[in-house]
Amino acid sequence: MIDIVGYAAAILGTIAWLPQVLKAWKTRETKDLSYGTNFMILACMLLWGIYGIALASWPMIVGNMISIALVTSILIAKYRFD
Amino acid sequence: MIDIVGYAAAILGTIAWLPQVLKAWKTRETKDLSYGTNFMILACMLLWGIYGIALASWPMIVGNMISIALVTSILIAKYRFD
Repeated sequence: MIDIVGYAAAILGTIAWLPQVLKAWKTRETKDLSYGTNFMILACMLLWGIYGIALASWPMIVGNMISIALVTSILIAKYRFD
Repeated sequence: MIDIVGYAAAILGTIAWLPQVLKAWKTRETKDLSYGTNFMILACMLLWGIYGIALASWPMIVGNMISIALVTSILIAKYRFD
């Protein structure tokens, strides 16, 4: 039962980044976003991905790979539009 | 050894929010931030907090409580300054 909460959190933590990605590329306005936060979140996801590999946890690996792609695209948008 | 990676990820995932909080309140500019992303991240942290309580994992509980406070303050900043 509590596993469902964990899976829901993992899925939500991945799709959560989508609105920010869409907003950044649509409006081309990214100056209010913090480089520090987005780089640390990216590093955090890389660590969780490594942790997932060590635990052979496919949901962690796949979830973090998608999140890494989304946050990287936010950072690319910020680099281009700032 | 791999536990260190997990702890590092958990700590980084908490302090990562600090630069965005400071930037939002200092510049009073928050329009580029996505409500959708921040609300989903908040919901995600609430779920991880509940998961942490179920597992009696103090690092998860404390880390998520701090993160919840930080992301809530980003949402309050956005509500005030947009």
